[in-house]
Amino acid sequence: MPGTPPSRFVYLGPEGTFTEAALRTLPAAERGVRTPARSVPEALEAVRAGDADAALVPLENSVGGAVPVTLDELVTGSPLVITREVVIPVEFVLAARQLIPLASIRTVAAHPQASAQCRNWLLAHLPDAVVVDVLSNAAAAISAAAGEHDAALCAPIGVPRNNLTVLADKVADHADAVTRFALLSRPGPVGEPTGDDVTSLAVSIRHDQVGALLAVLTELAVRGINLSRIESRPTGEQLGTYVFFLDCTGHVAETRMGEALRGLRRICADVRFLGSYPRHRLHREDPPPSVPGLTDADFADSAAWLARLRSGN
Amino acid sequence: MPGTPPSRFVYLGPEGTFTEAALRTLPAAERGVRTPARSVPEALEAVRAGDADAALVPLENSVGGAVPVTLDELVTGSPLVITREVVIPVEFVLAARQLIPLASIRTVAAHPQASAQCRNWLLAHLPDAVVVDVLSNAAAAISAAAGEHDAALCAPIGVPRNNLTVLADKVADHADAVTRFALLSRPGPVGEPTGDDVTSLAVSIRHDQVGALLAVLTELAVRGINLSRIESRPTGEQLGTYVFFLDCTGHVAETRMGEALRGLRRICADVRFLGSYPRHRLHREDPPPSVPGLTDADFADSAAWLARLRSGN
Amino acid sequence: MPGTPPSRFVYLGPEGTFTEAALRTLPAAERGVRTPARSVPEALEAVRAGDADAALVPLENSVGGAVPVTLDELVTGSPLVITREVVIPVEFVLAARQLIPLASIRTVAAHPQASAQCRNWLLAHLPDAVVVDVLSNAAAAISAAAGEHDAALCAPIGVPRNNLTVLADKVADHADAVTRFALLSRPGPVGEPTGDDVTSLAVSIRHDQVGALLAVLTELAVRGINLSRIESRPTGEQLGTYVFFLDCTGHVAETRMGEALRGLRRICADVRFLGSYPRHRLHREDPPPSVPGLTDADFADSAAWLARLRSGN
Amino acid sequence: MPGTPPSRFVYLGPEGTFTEAALRTLPAAERGVRTPARSVPEALEAVRAGDADAALVPLENSVGGAVPVTLDELVTGSPLVITREVVIPVEFVLAARQLIPLASIRTVAAHPQASAQCRNWLLAHLPDAVVVDVLSNAAAAISAAAGEHDAALCAPIGVPRNNLTVLADKVADHADAVTRFALLSRPGPVGEPTGDDVTSLAVSIRHDQVGALLAVLTELAVRGINLSRIESRPTGEQLGTYVFFLDCTGHVAETRMGEALRGLRRICADVRFLGSYPRHRLHREDPPPSVPGLTDADFADSAAWLARLRSGN
Repeated sequence: MPGTPPSRFVYLGPEGTFTEAALRTLPAAERGVRTPARSVPEALEAVRAGDADAALVPLENSVGGAVPVTLDELVTGSPLVITREVVIPVEFVLAARQLIPLASIRTVAAHPQASAQCRNWLLAHLPDAVVVDVLSNAAAAISAAAGEHDAALCAPIGVPRNNLTVLADKVADHADAVTRFALLSRPGPVGEPTGDDVTSLAVSIRHDQVGALLAVLTELAVRGINLSRIESRPTGEQLGTYVFFLDCTGHVAETRMGEALRGLRRICADVRFLGSYPRHRLHREDPPPSVPGLTDADFADSAAWLARLRSGN
Repeated sequence: MPGTPPSRFVYLGPEGTFTEAALRTLPAAERGVRTPARSVPEALEAVRAGDADAALVPLENSVGGAVPVTLDELVTGSPLVITREVVIPVEFVLAARQLIPLASIRTVAAHPQASAQCRNWLLAHLPDAVVVDVLSNAAAAISAAAGEHDAALCAPIGVPRNNLTVLADKVADHADAVTRFALLSRPGPVGEPTGDDVTSLAVSIRHDQVGALLAVLTELAVRGINLSRIESRPTGEQLGTYVFFLDCTGHVAETRMGEALRGLRRICADVRFLGSYPRHRLHREDPPPSVPGLTDADFADSAAWLARLRSGN
Repeated sequence: MPGTPPSRFVYLGPEGTFTEAALRTLPAAERGVRTPARSVPEALEAVRAGDADAALVPLENSVGGAVPVTLDELVTGSPLVITREVVIPVEFVLAARQLIPLASIRTVAAHPQASAQCRNWLLAHLPDAVVVDVLSNAAAAISAAAGEHDAALCAPIGVPRNNLTVLADKVADHADAVTRFALLSRPGPVGEPTGDDVTSLAVSIRHDQVGALLAVLTELAVRGINLSRIESRPTGEQLGTYVFFLDCTGHVAETRMGEALRGLRRICADVRFLGSYPRHRLHREDPPPSVPGLTDADFADSAAWLARLRSGN
Repeated sequence: MPGTPPSRFVYLGPEGTFTEAALRTLPAAERGVRTPARSVPEALEAVRAGDADAALVPLENSVGGAVPVTLDELVTGSPLVITREVVIPVEFVLAARQLIPLASIRTVAAHPQASAQCRNWLLAHLPDAVVVDVLSNAAAAISAAAGEHDAALCAPIGVPRNNLTVLADKVADHADAVTRFALLSRPGPVGEPTGDDVTSLAVSIRHDQVGALLAVLTELAVRGINLSRIESRPTGEQLGTYVFFLDCTGHVAETRMGEALRGLRRICADVRFLGSYPRHRLHREDPPPSVPGLTDADFADSAAWLARLRSGN
């Protein structure tokens, strides 16, 4: 991140959710000021207005998919860029005010996405309990703490904060589920490539989906750029008009990525650059190997060759 | 729809939502039995179990995007197919128990997607009111009728049902917003092509997003198939593994669509056929023109030519 | 070959050329009647008129390239198809009426393509001799036998026939040079696939070379068809209008080749089928491996799947 | 052409052929020294050795196709580049020593390509004459002048030079047939773009024809480069290994051509640049229109945009 590192952080609240847990994995945030926001738009507005240096908001979940409001906010209003990504495992617990037998539970408070991610566990262990929808994981914990419901599905961080007791942990159906968060700032000089980076883009294409999307993918493929993610979102204008969110392997400072971006810029109705940043890997993995013919050195060689042709030497 | 037309319908409830309004545009549903379900999974389960003939559930909204739970349900469990689509304009009203001045409103009950779609209107007309999230448009109307909140954002259908009074209509920011619903049944003989049809697919691709997605699009492009929609959803396994939902122009009974489907079947990890059905157009439009070289007659001609080659005549 | 095997053969003469040598590698021709023709058009006309059952003519040489007159004849007039290919090593010898020292040779008769293929050898061994162009390899041998020139570059078959003596053998610069011949017949039932076949086509494309040629190659690539040869020939109409000669790996009786041919038929201005026949390999090689997803079994599987979709079962 | 214009010209002889006629359309050649060479290799060797400044040789004929020896010479030896192309109509005349009736002609001397281009005319007007192959158009005229044959098919330039009389003119079957010649020089600074230029390349590709050729065409298509010509030539190594000769629309000094060349350089086994030069049009035609998104201005715009992204401004 450019110049002075960020010290004033805002995040999607309330306190006690996965987002706060993700933010606290960043040393600068652990040292700095952390303010919860009531919504993703509110968090981003704080950064846009200069009231915060960076905002951490959820981007996607490996079970629930993209977080639409985050995507929509990224393509409207003044530009923001992703400077870091944070991936954390999603873990749900069943918690209550005190240790009670599962058989005695009649109501469970849960955010609809949480109960969806624990559906099989609930069917197997609490077949007779009624699941009551609430508006956040934190709200579920609070309602169990207040005695409004017998138990709650919530994040581990919500347990101590509400003086709850864990009745069962790791209750999510997908043991490897993760959520990916983005740290967003106002645009500034882009960080150095690390060799294992992501470049995020929002690309608007014109009519004729097959042809236009083929053209976009071809611009990437010709430069050896791979995609780790592609999402489509309606533009709000009419069904069938989309903006595509692409996570590309590589960094804007690399020649081949630069050439691919220039190609997209020329053929697309609009391209919004959403940042180049290090890929966060939960498990140590080798970065993608360099592709023969597509390294910066190969590009430099071909540029020197072209210069020779043009000068006739 | 095959054999006897459906007479037992289930839909995403509660009563008084856009889904009920959409269902009642179908004459068979207007005559038949209509049962609300508490969730999309519950609605589809009723059809899978044979307790209902067809289920109407939301697929996507031109502002809010895809409805994730519907997509996820379509690729899990026993197969269901779309036999009809229904597109209806999304209209929100601000309603209250009685006619009151806007300036007197302190709280507005609204489903988060409803308040998102009316954000600009709320900022302009109710800048000081607190918007309280509730779990459905119907719940918003009920809470206003019960006096829990001063007013509600709800669908027009919720007004008479709860004895409410409209304070303002057409309060959505996008005047042309629509929601698209799917009528789902157990698989059976596919209806006849109408010349303006949609074929829906769920396609799972293997690694290497750019290459694999290029291959999928090429299979379609080579047969002149266009896309009116493409959505990606995570498979729940890990970030970066996707199933793509494709709405293709054309009908499974057409030769070129059949050849494209066979091509996808051969190259993809999995292809689930989600139905061929007439496109529902809100405004009269010409169906897409037939493409020279890609009509059923062209395919028949090329097949006859090939047969001659093979026989040597 | 269909019905009764051919017994009346015509070939590009005169006698004593590589073409006669190639023809005699076919047992049926060794047993049958072999008539030399003065030109490729004359040879093909004999087949078209029914005066011969099959004609052997040169198609291409690994050094000299395609034989234009053969290609041009194949796309004009009534259709003929290739039923066999014959590949033979090209070997040139330097021959004379009697054994003489190389240093005494002042003139060498040679067909221009023969002297081109032996250029380095001639420079090294006969730097001072004058090479005199003649109109065929056989004419070279005849002129040396007649004493018109001191020596001749000719095919080994021309040596005994003209009572010549070999002064040097294997004088071609490329030791592995081969010539490929085609046995042409009137269309009839195509032979059975052998698992290592070639299908030859002549494809006329419309304007916009890049786009049209990309479309042709894509029709092949989508069905996993590879090319072992591509040649372009002008159509005689204007510069920039071409017919492409393609040698594809596979057999017209295979499903994927059939589908590719149908695709070309639909998108190209014209497609002429020039035969499916076993590849002639000089050295034992494994046939190309079958590609997952593209075998006849895979096509049959996808066809059965499509039939189930269409019937709703 | 760079520096001092060429004044010493060599061309494919003998005198009195189309090549000499083509060379004399160039004012510098009309003023300069013009030396016939006995073969294309000899002509090019004179330039490579510095004995001549430029060589004019035939590249292709709209009826007969490419001139193989020219193509082969261009990819071997030290590099030469095309600095001009000359396209001239091909016109054949039937000529004899004196005016004689066609019915009295028993033998006609002709180069095989000449008789091929006049085949229909010969069949219609001289059905009983024997056509005798000779080694050049000039040799045909000379043999008629010497009385060896009753008449000759030759170029108009051969008539006065041999004191012949024209018996019939415009005897070629294709009235619009043209031959295209290339003026070749040692590499030097490339001329300025004119807006209607050709860039010639020789591209060697690795195995897997379909995939490799698709990749080459895609590199061009992505930058909006069209092809006016594509020829394949064997490399002399084995059947199935080719070098492709491409004539691309555009100039090496243009950004998009530069980017395409760099892409080819990266993916191909070898790329030889054969020059950028003005297209010679026989008839006034509009140059190809500029393509939106692919002008130099578009490339400059996208480069400026990329620079802004990278600097964060």
